[in-house]
Amino acid sequence: MRQVAILGIGQTKIDEQWDLSLREIGGNAALAAMHDAGMDKVEALFVGNMLSPLISGQNQLGTFLADWIGLWRREAVKVEAACASGAAALRAGLMAVAAGDIDSALVLGVEKMSDKAGHDITAALATAADADYEVDQGISFVGLNALIMRRYMHEHGWKHADFAPFSINAHANAMHNPFARLHQKINAEQFEKSAMIATPINLLDASPTGDGAAAVVLVPAERVASLNGKPRVLVAGSGSATDSIAVHSRKDPLFLSAAHESVKRAYEMANVGPKDIDVFELHDAFSIMAALSLEACGFAERGQGVRLGLDNEISPKGRLPVCTRGGLKARGHPVGATGMYQVVEVVQQLRGECDGTQVDGARVGMTQNIGGSGATILTHILKAE
Amino acid sequence: MRQVAILGIGQTKIDEQWDLSLREIGGNAALAAMHDAGMDKVEALFVGNMLSPLISGQNQLGTFLADWIGLWRREAVKVEAACASGAAALRAGLMAVAAGDIDSALVLGVEKMSDKAGHDITAALATAADADYEVDQGISFVGLNALIMRRYMHEHGWKHADFAPFSINAHANAMHNPFARLHQKINAEQFEKSAMIATPINLLDASPTGDGAAAVVLVPAERVASLNGKPRVLVAGSGSATDSIAVHSRKDPLFLSAAHESVKRAYEMANVGPKDIDVFELHDAFSIMAALSLEACGFAERGQGVRLGLDNEISPKGRLPVCTRGGLKARGHPVGATGMYQVVEVVQQLRGECDGTQVDGARVGMTQNIGGSGATILTHILKAE
Repeated sequence: MRQVAILGIGQTKIDEQWDLSLREIGGNAALAAMHDAGMDKVEALFVGNMLSPLISGQNQLGTFLADWIGLWRREAVKVEAACASGAAALRAGLMAVAAGDIDSALVLGVEKMSDKAGHDITAALATAADADYEVDQGISFVGLNALIMRRYMHEHGWKHADFAPFSINAHANAMHNPFARLHQKINAEQFEKSAMIATPINLLDASPTGDGAAAVVLVPAERVASLNGKPRVLVAGSGSATDSIAVHSRKDPLFLSAAHESVKRAYEMANVGPKDIDVFELHDAFSIMAALSLEACGFAERGQGVRLGLDNEISPKGRLPVCTRGGLKARGHPVGATGMYQVVEVVQQLRGECDGTQVDGARVGMTQNIGGSGATILTHILKAE
Repeated sequence: MRQVAILGIGQTKIDEQWDLSLREIGGNAALAAMHDAGMDKVEALFVGNMLSPLISGQNQLGTFLADWIGLWRREAVKVEAACASGAAALRAGLMAVAAGDIDSALVLGVEKMSDKAGHDITAALATAADADYEVDQGISFVGLNALIMRRYMHEHGWKHADFAPFSINAHANAMHNPFARLHQKINAEQFEKSAMIATPINLLDASPTGDGAAAVVLVPAERVASLNGKPRVLVAGSGSATDSIAVHSRKDPLFLSAAHESVKRAYEMANVGPKDIDVFELHDAFSIMAALSLEACGFAERGQGVRLGLDNEISPKGRLPVCTRGGLKARGHPVGATGMYQVVEVVQQLRGECDGTQVDGARVGMTQNIGGSGATILTHILKAE
């Protein structure tokens, strides 16, 4: 495989963007990434998106967006893996450039969610679960995560309040990210008093959805010197793995085996281990997922993921900074775009562009993007050099 | 890029499969391909599908099917490019194996269409067109193709009856394909008298949808000797290209520029030209698309694609056999699966497994899969050696 580098990044503010359409939001992030890369054309476009058929009545999103941004006759395709669609698109673009068939790829995650009412969005998000054996029984996506969180609290003896540091850290970090959906600090008391959604998950355990897009330009590493004095960022590791789609089919619903498998592959490819990771953008769609991700990736023992928050190790100055730009919890979770926001944010950290939440000396960053309740998990490791 | 070979193939009969679910249909083709390859596990699953979110309320189809067939913890992803989803999945799998990151990939195209009523399917298929600028104006997908066909007849002076040979050939060939949806010979009189759908497209210009799945197993070519005395089949060429998603945005709606560009790339990669192609599985979703595909790929001059049918050159004994297993017209068009049926059928031709419609001495075969009204087009060239 050829080594692949990220030459440009782009993103849009996550919000209810009533004045922007699906194609405009996606196009804005794509063009921003090309501008950042100093390129006016690329050979291929890989789009990560989950919901456009259901929300916008639009399929074939690769071509739809290639058309909009003027990539005429270029290759374009959409990749979908529920909320892991963004990272899945990155991996598809990575393979095409690594294989040597193309010399440049634009990878874009995009989601436009505010064009439907809340109950339609809840139904659309439930398509990430098993339609026959989970959704048809009446459970929602947050309901599945609530079952996992309740079991975790029962098995390991944690209280709901013990999850607060994940959300407090995310909200604090988002204050410094102009693209974040929420700019609002929270404290432990607010966390405990927040409105209940599905016991024990309350509003401040859950990430807000939104409209947004994020993109990167991939090129063969040998074609990139340092970028305007900033370090060259390599996609050093990539792993993708799956678990059963239905939570009830898992031997142990409290262990993200797909995370464990995907991170193992990414560590091996990048030739690093947990101790080498300077910054970790994890998939805190719900606070329980932050804890499980930390455990599956080797940062905490089983059942001890929440301790990293309680011990204040996850802040930008801590031992393992996570969600340094706000995470899903406060930056926001435009589902099919989220994986690409994580990648853009790690590039920002490795370039030293994160005023207020910069991790000093960050050289190796990791992203982990989760589709469904742990069903599809992709891990990527980026290195500055 | 590493050379990649097709080691196994599998397919299911296209029909209204009321007793089989989405996962069963997909699983049956996938397991048949693995059985044919003599493998009980693969490293990754690439699924091509267009409509499962809209018809079955199911996203994340890669993981959904990996789970069902027991590919636990393996990589899995869905690729979507409207009716070109099947070939797009093949290309994604091809790149991953060619890059060297994985040593085996199962590529599956699957569609389950009979679980919704006809008007819902018409609306779902329209998501391949531009939701804002085509569908919102009230046009259907067949309506867009009808506009193209009408214009072609006007520009080049052909009558509707001149398109009959495409459909007659497809129906005749499908008689010998047990997996085909339609087993019914037709003649020129029936073609002209068939029920009108959208002038000038009538029922016998149009392909039937259905439930179906087709799959192949990809491995590095160096790991494959000949297979039980049958030739080794290489994926020798692959090209993907796009055009504007809306037909009205094209400079010339009668030229499939995405086909022209994608076939050019596939010819170059395979180091062949039109005269080297022994069999061509083209995308005859509507008879007009057969004519336009032949022209864009260099088999006919502009406006002369229909002549190949009239001159009897497209039958299995002709100069350029097309749709030798029935094509979309009679084998059937389970939209996201179709591209993979084409690939499986060319492998059958190269292996000499097409009793009744075998192309003598076939060594080089081509598939072309079209998403939308010519918006996303992928071409693959397979070689026996």
